Amino acid sequence: MTQAPIRVALLGCGTVGSAVARLMNERGELYGAQLGRPLVLTGIAVRNLHAARDLGGVNPDLLTDDAASLVESADVVVEVMGGLEPSKSLMEAAFARGAHVVSANKQLIAHHGISLHKSADRAGVELRYEAAVMAAVPVLRAISESMSGDEIKTISGIVNGSTNYVLDLVSRLGVPFEDAVKQAGELGFLEADPTEDLQGIDAAAKIVILARLAWGIEASMGDVRRQGIADLQDVDFDQARAAGRVIKLVATANATGSARDPRVELSVQPVPLPIDHPLAGVREGNNALMIEAISAGPLFLAGAGAGGDATASAVLSDLLDVSRLVG
Amino acid sequence: MTQAPIRVALLGCGTVGSAVARLMNERGELYGAQLGRPLVLTGIAVRNLHAARDLGGVNPDLLTDDAASLVESADVVVEVMGGLEPSKSLMEAAFARGAHVVSANKQLIAHHGISLHKSADRAGVELRYEAAVMAAVPVLRAISESMSGDEIKTISGIVNGSTNYVLDLVSRLGVPFEDAVKQAGELGFLEADPTEDLQGIDAAAKIVILARLAWGIEASMGDVRRQGIADLQDVDFDQARAAGRVIKLVATANATGSARDPRVELSVQPVPLPIDHPLAGVREGNNALMIEAISAGPLFLAGAGAGGDATASAVLSDLLDVSRLVG
Repeated sequence: MTQAPIRVALLGCGTVGSAVARLMNERGELYGAQLGRPLVLTGIAVRNLHAARDLGGVNPDLLTDDAASLVESADVVVEVMGGLEPSKSLMEAAFARGAHVVSANKQLIAHHGISLHKSADRAGVELRYEAAVMAAVPVLRAISESMSGDEIKTISGIVNGSTNYVLDLVSRLGVPFEDAVKQAGELGFLEADPTEDLQGIDAAAKIVILARLAWGIEASMGDVRRQGIADLQDVDFDQARAAGRVIKLVATANATGSARDPRVELSVQPVPLPIDHPLAGVREGNNALMIEAISAGPLFLAGAGAGGDATASAVLSDLLDVSRLVG
Repeated sequence: MTQAPIRVALLGCGTVGSAVARLMNERGELYGAQLGRPLVLTGIAVRNLHAARDLGGVNPDLLTDDAASLVESADVVVEVMGGLEPSKSLMEAAFARGAHVVSANKQLIAHHGISLHKSADRAGVELRYEAAVMAAVPVLRAISESMSGDEIKTISGIVNGSTNYVLDLVSRLGVPFEDAVKQAGELGFLEADPTEDLQGIDAAAKIVILARLAWGIEASMGDVRRQGIADLQDVDFDQARAAGRVIKLVATANATGSARDPRVELSVQPVPLPIDHPLAGVREGNNALMIEAISAGPLFLAGAGAGGDATASAVLSDLLDVSRLVG
């Protein structure tokens, strides 16, 4: 390989970021062979240089707290910091310098995806975020590319693994609801502040992203009729069980207009599903999505919806893909 | 739209071809808006101009028995004739004139895909065939693009809807095996000559195509250890049922080497699956595929594996995709 290396700036070194760094290190030779030139991690931006972290063989000298400088010399920026700022400003800086961006940041994309796409388009670069929805389950690509010649009618699914873990504990294993929330927290399935999961905010961000790609609409978080699982009580589960049903937190996007004038209803809510419904059997922290299109009929995609390595898998595939576009 | 139209030649007007023609007609305006220029069907090549066929609103003047001339003036050729010849020669002619090709022809791709890809590469054009495996379920794109940064270990699934329909009749509805084969034939789930389905040849073609894309290997039909369902007897189903299992025709590709030196074992065979196995619940003519990668873990994709409209959905999405590349 005599061609110039592709320089990758990694922003963030939490669960996902450290998995990305480790896997880039382990698979460097493979990726180089696929691309015909080396893919080189030039630095990992972190907030606190001195925090304890497991880099799994990655050179600790790559750590920096100067994200802005790192972006300035990158061909591709991988943003896995989460949060709205400084992620958004760093992405805009990446576009301005002509770098492609790969992100796993669902809240940033849900809130500012439309303007970020405009910035990327103006700069003639790519913005990819397959990892932001259902980790490595390739739902964004399925919707935006594989169904481009079809007309999608409905998207519905279990897109938040944390709440599914809780609901599965209650429905399948009979754990009381409050205990299930506690257990999920202790096992790391819920954040220290579990509001985003329990109130359905995380799921709402994902259905907004899916709806935009499916119908090219400018959906926003405020368009989602949202009810989380926080107010559920054991009696709700007892009633569902007695009716042969299983309560799941279901995110839905339903097209009511025509393909020419799409109108889409978005919701996130707990739904008592019949036990033979395809989404009823989704266990533990898994995710599943049904996409119903006029010609294709219903498609079903499922897998791990979170986790460092599963999310890194999607980040790395996007990274390889946009790296092919680096001049 | 002031740009020149994209000229599409359709080869074949059977179940899939007529659906493609009808849907191009119905969605012409939508496709034009997506591409920024009209997508025009310039002709439909058929063997017998006078055969009865339902064109569903498509202009019958588009029919021609001169496929070669049609290809000569096309920007994109859609090949849904099936069979090895004249499909192969027509594809080569398309590449030679610089046209992209979209196909649903699994046998042609399984037998000659490697040389056809070389021809396409030499001509600088695309050869796409998402429809050839599991119709609109986007398994080829998942494997070749969405998992490009990961390492796939195993692919296994139910990739032939006809035999699954038969096996489901026997296992779930208790129909005797011979009657189930007869019923499936009467309902159009089996071809007049059902050998390709019942002997596992159709499934073998699909697992060969999947394995090539997953590992970049030059797999061929002869590499598949193949056993169909033709020799199954009712006693086999009784034994499986007694053991709490369900017999499914499972196609498997299993990587035993390393990512640098992949060795892949390919098989198609009836397997008694535990009833809680993800593939055990696949009903009627549906298809399902499990893709297990090192970082992503197991992914599950399912949907209709055949049918005119479902197959046309994948053909049309590939068609839109390659049309964006037409100069």
